[in-house]
Amino acid sequence: VLGLIDHVGVAVDDLDAATALYEGTFGMALAHRETIAEQSVEAVLLDVGGGHVELLRPLDEDTGLGRFLDRHGPGLHHVAYRVDDLEAALETLRGRGVEALDPGPRRGIRGSRVAFLDLESTGRVLTEIVEPARGVH
Amino acid sequence: VLGLIDHVGVAVDDLDAATALYEGTFGMALAHRETIAEQSVEAVLLDVGGGHVELLRPLDEDTGLGRFLDRHGPGLHHVAYRVDDLEAALETLRGRGVEALDPGPRRGIRGSRVAFLDLESTGRVLTEIVEPARGVH
Repeated sequence: VLGLIDHVGVAVDDLDAATALYEGTFGMALAHRETIAEQSVEAVLLDVGGGHVELLRPLDEDTGLGRFLDRHGPGLHHVAYRVDDLEAALETLRGRGVEALDPGPRRGIRGSRVAFLDLESTGRVLTEIVEPARGVH
Repeated sequence: VLGLIDHVGVAVDDLDAATALYEGTFGMALAHRETIAEQSVEAVLLDVGGGHVELLRPLDEDTGLGRFLDRHGPGLHHVAYRVDDLEAALETLRGRGVEALDPGPRRGIRGSRVAFLDLESTGRVLTEIVEPARGVH
């Protein structure tokens, strides 16, 4: 069902400092920066191998990410697996007892379509599945 | 410096149940199961793309992983990046102000050599670097 690790998502409170760490210190190439209004988040994507690190700063405290930062502080937030067909993957998972958190796909970074899975079904690991926009990896 | 996402590490309290979730529900191939005495952990490795999910159950409460489970419960624990040469990567990182948690490399799963980086240098993301054993990916 799940193709590969598309990215790890990291909650940060200072996006510029975190970008400098991953780009300058860890040597990852900066791929993209975007404000995703639908998720109230400002995000930076860096390349590492065929996958990415996604740095996430909440624009609203009253979001899942904002509450995560309040409770835990900065740190590892989620893991995302790449799929070819989001709806097909969600249907397969649903048939195996794993529900998505939202009724339908959400817009992710760089035009991707994403869904987060119910924490109760994933051993409390915040798990996202991602269908990249056509031509984007 | 960091080649690709080698794996995400997941803290679990029931290794068989977690293995069933990742193998049966998520459809990842079970690659390896091992007790790593040096880290007081029982671990399962599953394949996803060119990377892995590493499920970790502590064998001792008085370890980093044991304390993590006590505080947070099961969940996403660390991210590991693959490198060709662990010592060279650590030296490069040290030159950029990032120290390892231990003085020298530790033995990881499947004969790999690993080092965890100081949380203060990584924006509180528990970050591991991994040099796989020769011929193992």
